[in-house]
Amino acid sequence: MAEISTAKLDEFFKPRGIAIVGASAKAGSPNHQIVINAKGMSPDSKVYPVNPKMDEIAELRCYKNLLSIPEPVDLIVMAVGPQNSMSVAKEIKQRREEKGDAGAVAVVTSGFKEMGTKEGEQLQIDLIDTIKSCGGRILGPNCQGVVDLFNGINTTFTVPPNTPKGGVSIISQSGAFATSFIRWAKDQKLVGINKFVSMGNMADVDFRDLLNYLAKDEKTNVISMYLEGINDARGMFEIAAEVTRTKPVVAIKAGKTAMGTNVAQSHTASIAGNNDIYEGAFRQAGIIRAQNVAEFYHTSRVFDKMPLPKGNRICILTVIGGPSTICVDELVSTGDIQLAHFKDELKQELAKHLSASAAIGNPDGYIDMTAAVTPVMHENVLKLLLEDDNIDGIIFMTTPPGFIGDQEMADAVIAAYNSVSPEKRKPLLSVLMAGNAVAKCRTLMESAGLPTFEYPDDAARVMINLVKYSAYRRRFD
Amino acid sequence: MAEISTAKLDEFFKPRGIAIVGASAKAGSPNHQIVINAKGMSPDSKVYPVNPKMDEIAELRCYKNLLSIPEPVDLIVMAVGPQNSMSVAKEIKQRREEKGDAGAVAVVTSGFKEMGTKEGEQLQIDLIDTIKSCGGRILGPNCQGVVDLFNGINTTFTVPPNTPKGGVSIISQSGAFATSFIRWAKDQKLVGINKFVSMGNMADVDFRDLLNYLAKDEKTNVISMYLEGINDARGMFEIAAEVTRTKPVVAIKAGKTAMGTNVAQSHTASIAGNNDIYEGAFRQAGIIRAQNVAEFYHTSRVFDKMPLPKGNRICILTVIGGPSTICVDELVSTGDIQLAHFKDELKQELAKHLSASAAIGNPDGYIDMTAAVTPVMHENVLKLLLEDDNIDGIIFMTTPPGFIGDQEMADAVIAAYNSVSPEKRKPLLSVLMAGNAVAKCRTLMESAGLPTFEYPDDAARVMINLVKYSAYRRRFD
Repeated sequence: MAEISTAKLDEFFKPRGIAIVGASAKAGSPNHQIVINAKGMSPDSKVYPVNPKMDEIAELRCYKNLLSIPEPVDLIVMAVGPQNSMSVAKEIKQRREEKGDAGAVAVVTSGFKEMGTKEGEQLQIDLIDTIKSCGGRILGPNCQGVVDLFNGINTTFTVPPNTPKGGVSIISQSGAFATSFIRWAKDQKLVGINKFVSMGNMADVDFRDLLNYLAKDEKTNVISMYLEGINDARGMFEIAAEVTRTKPVVAIKAGKTAMGTNVAQSHTASIAGNNDIYEGAFRQAGIIRAQNVAEFYHTSRVFDKMPLPKGNRICILTVIGGPSTICVDELVSTGDIQLAHFKDELKQELAKHLSASAAIGNPDGYIDMTAAVTPVMHENVLKLLLEDDNIDGIIFMTTPPGFIGDQEMADAVIAAYNSVSPEKRKPLLSVLMAGNAVAKCRTLMESAGLPTFEYPDDAARVMINLVKYSAYRRRFD
Repeated sequence: MAEISTAKLDEFFKPRGIAIVGASAKAGSPNHQIVINAKGMSPDSKVYPVNPKMDEIAELRCYKNLLSIPEPVDLIVMAVGPQNSMSVAKEIKQRREEKGDAGAVAVVTSGFKEMGTKEGEQLQIDLIDTIKSCGGRILGPNCQGVVDLFNGINTTFTVPPNTPKGGVSIISQSGAFATSFIRWAKDQKLVGINKFVSMGNMADVDFRDLLNYLAKDEKTNVISMYLEGINDARGMFEIAAEVTRTKPVVAIKAGKTAMGTNVAQSHTASIAGNNDIYEGAFRQAGIIRAQNVAEFYHTSRVFDKMPLPKGNRICILTVIGGPSTICVDELVSTGDIQLAHFKDELKQELAKHLSASAAIGNPDGYIDMTAAVTPVMHENVLKLLLEDDNIDGIIFMTTPPGFIGDQEMADAVIAAYNSVSPEKRKPLLSVLMAGNAVAKCRTLMESAGLPTFEYPDDAARVMINLVKYSAYRRRFD
């Protein structure tokens, strides 16, 4: 019998093998898709479907039970019905005692505490007890497991292959919330993902574990969390307060209302807690709390793509006056940001590149280029603003006019940004209003690392978050 | 000399001819694009470029001046520099006195009151005086003019041809704001547009005129307004209060903050006014005020696409628990909506179509189908909810799983909706999380008239607006 110690989180992210118990041969079912995705994310990874009735699934050899897999398997995906969960738990325990592996268990199965029944709650207790009794660690139950794009791990039925890699790691009590984000981002390269951990009912591994783990993960630049309830809120916020001194943590918290709390309870058996208390705790811990889904998406990705601003002096460069009025309304609404002051020399330089109808510094910090614009004009003006030490960040607002092509527009902005030396860079957020009509421009800019937005209010919210977090961080410098 | 009376708004929307003064032959310039767009929207419309230096622009005969156009021209687009605006105004006056047409003038030229200079203000006064002295009506200055998709009129350099027709008419003090909306909507058929009127500095024709005009326009189902300031706020709100008894009016008001007000003033010389007073006035007049751009877009289009709900009992059908928690939080946040009560018979029927893991009515009014779903399941469950008289509206939440194709998913939802007899229909809002990854599903549903959303909070806000406006309307039934 092998010597057994408690499994480490590394066994979820760097397993020597992955067993999928409850794998299905039926195309179109979640339990088949899990096998496809696990195999697809990394053809070299050792994926072992387990199903007593099959010899092969998705062209992989299928095993009758966990014990019959000869290779080491650190990560077990439990995807059977709840009625079979205890027998699988016992197999896991047996394998761990006999071979010393099988320490990381992702319980995809649902039908536990979230059912709101005594039976469901007891079954969850029994399951966790059995696996923990041999030093196993459990994700879930009622979760989607883990994704690690750098290590080629994917136990979900939802995260597509070829998801762009990057610095955002997501910890989520909703698998669907996180995977919607990942899928949203994929086509236009809006987000680069490192890890995704689906927490489900969070009966063992919780936010504290993951915050500690991801804080030390060099390839994670931003930690993004979707929360419903928290096991040990005080402990979690203490850890988060440490993490946010060096890495941004973005959170969205569901269950703000009594009715939302009821839904959360039916979803992951979470007690959502008092919203006002959470609001204060997030702020104190330096966590950036997004108020809606779009703010969560955009804040997470921009913290990965852009540098922090050095101060709160933001300027607006626009060809669209109306949407820019809305942007400014939002930008100044919290009192954290002021419009930058344009020195006379800057205004004189700007005037050289702009048409007579342009409004430069009316009001201060604001430039309306008006409609008579060219790509060269965009590039030159952006360069001046990017180089100016009295400006800490820029929001560029346009609905690219029909007479400037998507490629030309993107090239101009990218050239301006790349002309600035890396250590002098500041956040540049570009609002390209017109939705998919400017999809090509958007994709070009995003691929070059420049974040774009459909709505002015979203860009303003993200700029506020950048400025606030930057001020928070400077307290520890 | 022809007899002259004051021009009517019909002359903007149904002109016998359109003259474009300041037309340019230079591809890539706004003043060339205006000619292209005017011609492109309706090849049969009579479009007359005016430019003393050219014989032809965009394959249309070009005239030396306004007076030399032999055919009747009711609509004059003034697109010259501000320094030439007065000489064009005098030509307009002369033509009107000699021929009796040229009564509708869209002044695209900028450089007037919005400059914040005495000269600009005086030039605007002189311009308006000259044109009004012969009974002309003026749009702008500093505007983009008019679009009428049913009458084939387009004086803008931004609205593309083949914009989908529909029941939304937009009145906007920002041309860019409205045309961004139109372009956003075009690809995925998100919005059907009837008219767009760009108000600019609003020195003559204003919101009162347009509200009265569009209230009587049979093809306008929804009036959507972007406002910065209002000339006669009391008069405008009195008219709006009449209009909203029979047609929804959706508004977004920029200049909420002192800084936003400064921008509005530089943009259209508007005095934005006190935000709290506006908030009350909008509510009293029955105008639906959107708090951000996305809410404005979605509310406008959904009022055109969906029937009003008969009450405030809304249910949620989901396969994505986390995002649905966020949706419910937003949905109940204003107190206008309650989750529908499911009768036992309905729950029993629903259970027949769902898997054992589904949560039906936990909490009441909420169904989580969980991941084991099929298209048939969607169709059957939606039919039951659409037929149930105790439910006034439905929000359907999904990130369409990889094992259900976009076409299958869209077909199931569309079939369910179309199975209900038109007089029994209720609003169905579908949140398809995953952005462009489900673009095909989105476009199929939108083309069938079923509104889709990327974010749960947006769908919730729109449902609140539907329920609130429906309650307001019932006061007058």
